[in-house]
Amino acid sequence: MSVEFFTAHETILNQALDAANARGYWSPFSEMPSPRVYGETANDEAKSSFEAQRGKSFSGLNAGTNALAVNEVSPFDGALGISYPKASVEALIASSTEAWKTWRRAGPRAWVGVSMEILHHLNRASFEIAYAVQHTTGQGFMMAFQAGGPHAQDRGVEAVTYAWQEMSRIPTDTQWIKPQGKNDPITMNKHFSIVPRGIGLVIGCSTFPTWNGYPGLFASLATGNTVIVKPHPSAILPLAITVRIAREVLQEAGFNPDVVMLAVHDAKDNMAQELALRPEVKIIDFTGSSANGNWLEANARQAQVYTEKSGVNQIMIDSAEDLKGVARNIAFSLALYSGQMCTAPQNIYVPAAGIFTAAGHVSFDEVAAAIASSVEKLMSDPSKAVEVTGAIQNEATEARIAQARALGLPVLAESQLLEHPLFPQARVRTPLILRASANDAAIGKEWFGPIAFIVATDSTAQSIAIATKMVQQHGALSLAGYTTDAAVRAEMQDAAEIAGVSLSLNLTGAVFVNQTAAFSDFHGTGANPAANAALSDSAFVANRFRVVQTRWHA
Amino acid sequence: MSVEFFTAHETILNQALDAANARGYWSPFSEMPSPRVYGETANDEAKSSFEAQRGKSFSGLNAGTNALAVNEVSPFDGALGISYPKASVEALIASSTEAWKTWRRAGPRAWVGVSMEILHHLNRASFEIAYAVQHTTGQGFMMAFQAGGPHAQDRGVEAVTYAWQEMSRIPTDTQWIKPQGKNDPITMNKHFSIVPRGIGLVIGCSTFPTWNGYPGLFASLATGNTVIVKPHPSAILPLAITVRIAREVLQEAGFNPDVVMLAVHDAKDNMAQELALRPEVKIIDFTGSSANGNWLEANARQAQVYTEKSGVNQIMIDSAEDLKGVARNIAFSLALYSGQMCTAPQNIYVPAAGIFTAAGHVSFDEVAAAIASSVEKLMSDPSKAVEVTGAIQNEATEARIAQARALGLPVLAESQLLEHPLFPQARVRTPLILRASANDAAIGKEWFGPIAFIVATDSTAQSIAIATKMVQQHGALSLAGYTTDAAVRAEMQDAAEIAGVSLSLNLTGAVFVNQTAAFSDFHGTGANPAANAALSDSAFVANRFRVVQTRWHA
Repeated sequence: MSVEFFTAHETILNQALDAANARGYWSPFSEMPSPRVYGETANDEAKSSFEAQRGKSFSGLNAGTNALAVNEVSPFDGALGISYPKASVEALIASSTEAWKTWRRAGPRAWVGVSMEILHHLNRASFEIAYAVQHTTGQGFMMAFQAGGPHAQDRGVEAVTYAWQEMSRIPTDTQWIKPQGKNDPITMNKHFSIVPRGIGLVIGCSTFPTWNGYPGLFASLATGNTVIVKPHPSAILPLAITVRIAREVLQEAGFNPDVVMLAVHDAKDNMAQELALRPEVKIIDFTGSSANGNWLEANARQAQVYTEKSGVNQIMIDSAEDLKGVARNIAFSLALYSGQMCTAPQNIYVPAAGIFTAAGHVSFDEVAAAIASSVEKLMSDPSKAVEVTGAIQNEATEARIAQARALGLPVLAESQLLEHPLFPQARVRTPLILRASANDAAIGKEWFGPIAFIVATDSTAQSIAIATKMVQQHGALSLAGYTTDAAVRAEMQDAAEIAGVSLSLNLTGAVFVNQTAAFSDFHGTGANPAANAALSDSAFVANRFRVVQTRWHA
Repeated sequence: MSVEFFTAHETILNQALDAANARGYWSPFSEMPSPRVYGETANDEAKSSFEAQRGKSFSGLNAGTNALAVNEVSPFDGALGISYPKASVEALIASSTEAWKTWRRAGPRAWVGVSMEILHHLNRASFEIAYAVQHTTGQGFMMAFQAGGPHAQDRGVEAVTYAWQEMSRIPTDTQWIKPQGKNDPITMNKHFSIVPRGIGLVIGCSTFPTWNGYPGLFASLATGNTVIVKPHPSAILPLAITVRIAREVLQEAGFNPDVVMLAVHDAKDNMAQELALRPEVKIIDFTGSSANGNWLEANARQAQVYTEKSGVNQIMIDSAEDLKGVARNIAFSLALYSGQMCTAPQNIYVPAAGIFTAAGHVSFDEVAAAIASSVEKLMSDPSKAVEVTGAIQNEATEARIAQARALGLPVLAESQLLEHPLFPQARVRTPLILRASANDAAIGKEWFGPIAFIVATDSTAQSIAIATKMVQQHGALSLAGYTTDAAVRAEMQDAAEIAGVSLSLNLTGAVFVNQTAAFSDFHGTGANPAANAALSDSAFVANRFRVVQTRWHA
């Protein structure tokens, strides 16, 4: 069965290999929540099923005592009240180890086939996952569908693709024939086995549980490891659905479904750390705070640890053709999901003396005002605005807006409370934009959420220098620049390469610095403190398995 | 110039790519010290030049004050008395950082071209390197030539090959064209830069300075990093010649020769640790003791650390066609370079009830006696024996023989002093073979040098179980098995895969468990405590560089 899965998905896999090497646009999934693609009734069914799940226990998972995850609250409309089976660390490790015994022998085609089949099933469940993502993360529905569904699945396929690329280059059997001059050659038979490392632990985040979770989940699974998925206690549902679907496919393929397990826990216990330090856990994929990520890197020494942590994302404005286009593009980036993307910009550097545009010189204040008023315009119709901003995922992020406000910096755009037309309880806020100087300590840390600083610098040279230093010290997942000057552009590019961060130049259209596309854009570089890996590349997969060879005389 | 180097070596590089994927026999170099290949006068010239170098200062290296490296002593005939320029850690880092500024911009074709050209020059210097290896490591001349010359160069080419494979799959420029239904597509231009990490530090060992040093050196260099080579204080000369040649090629290619530098130090100072902890050092390749390797992994957290450490290599004897062939093959493996190879076997498990062979049942004592007498026979003519054993590299290894003797275990073969016909001062010893039981604590640690234990076990099942546990606890770089039974063979293979160690089965001919061939055999697996990486695979190179992309609207 599992080999049939491989055959069924081989064409897509080969297209994916080509796409990853060409790095142009490609996706096996439709990103539009279209009834024609996903089924006429898909949306309604998913919505009803989400509503029906509220207040009930979730089934189809690994065994455990049913425990109410009290922390799972929709940022739109209150507690989900869903209970999940809770198992001990000991029980999880034991079951995962047991399931590994047959899974590890199944080989690359089975691992890859099953992984692709799971992703195929996940795609069909995109609406179900979208409602789960929306009501745990606070994303607007469209983002929840796209980023939580097809785009996350893209990143899953991408990880499987890299895994297959690395594994398939190792021949299973070969002959080594060494000439011996006039004598007969020495001939050895050699067999190469792909040997997975053991258990992979995926530690999910509260904002993009599937998008950030799938690369590690599928990179580990496709290389023959079993996987324990530990969601953030406030965003369990999207990964619970994912694990349920994975288990269904595993069972269908004849494997122990415990190859993929869910580990739920209370926000206050230390189950994540306990799991992370278990000797059986050989791989950890983590998305979350720098404190937790750095702790894992320092302490989970028995495992390969892949982390995506926090950082300070920045925009350098030197000059522009069309300031309005610049301001519109930046405004959208600031408002999108209320700055709760790991790629959302925070510090915007503009020379105090202003910039040149096609329409002539523009002062610092005019640049700042253009961005602020673009944000205000974007937020002017609440019913449209809430689809961009979504809701604030948690109270700590909401509190951070007040903390930023209390810095006492000049306010360029005030953070407004918006009323969501459908969800009156929702925490919806417009971005707070403050004016800062290059010396303000506040710009030297991450302000996760809808908080941005427009920073007056001495010059573009200083903007670039500060941006470089910030990336090197605090990390960054994105960097943007605006310039019409080829020399400045080269300086920005050089700075990005030295600091090790991806650069988006002169974005004024329908592409935003926050977004990266699977198969084309690397998410993270692994070259600055915000992440020790990139999604996805060879390095992300090649150490999740090892090769053990046997040789003998022919 | 550097791009011409790439073109000049492109055919070999493509052959190497094919070889690494097919994993059959391939080498671009001749392993025989043949005058027809290396030049009629090559041997004589290299010998004279080695003799002339003794007692003199070594030139052609990076700047420093000339310091006599008092620890460099030929295991064959006493002190080398060569002095090398000694620079401070500060000066080394500063010069390497300065050289990186242009090197890092040169790009993959230049890095790979220069690396291949250096290897080509190293090959021409194989005789010179052979004398240097012989008189620092104690290897017999043939091994010093082959393992120190062409086989080490093979491993260098292999690392460059994997580096090129990983870098060349990243397109330099691409267009991302995303369809927008009836509207115009969104088109982005994307540029991808290969960005090296910084300085690579190579920490050499005293037994195979070039063979173990070249993979890391060339993997880092070919991915755009600069390299500081820090040889073991007792085996500087082979790597000094290597660095001199690398610098000549770099200069010829128009680069700052400080892209490759030598760091000499006294055995008693802590320069290695100081270098390893410098923030500019982003990659460390280490071969040596587990204590030092584990220290680097735990402390040099700013760097990617690739280690090859110590372990306990083992042979499981279950049954055999031809016991004589088994005994001959094992005897050679034990005697070869006096067990000073990281792959040399130490523990040989034989069921106490004996084994079955084509000639019928053979008792434990007969098996043990067959191995012991094969060793004695191999050592019977000192003039031939010394070419196999070479000399003992250092006094600690010699002292270990006495320590093993003092365990009080029954002696199967006594370690004899042999007189070297050419070098009367040489420390030459035949292997000590002891009889042990499965419970002897002595078999649970590495006895580096010509020391082996033939261990009586309850059964082959116990042999396999002990071997598995030893690999998991102490690590191993090789494992061998002898069996005529298909079921036992499968159990051995399974145990090797679970423990994560390469397995050689039924070796009775001209291939020995100690040997691995570049492009075909992985050296180390990275799956047990003896090494955290394999030579070479994608994982060994893919994280030595990162990709930084720039994107903009087309």
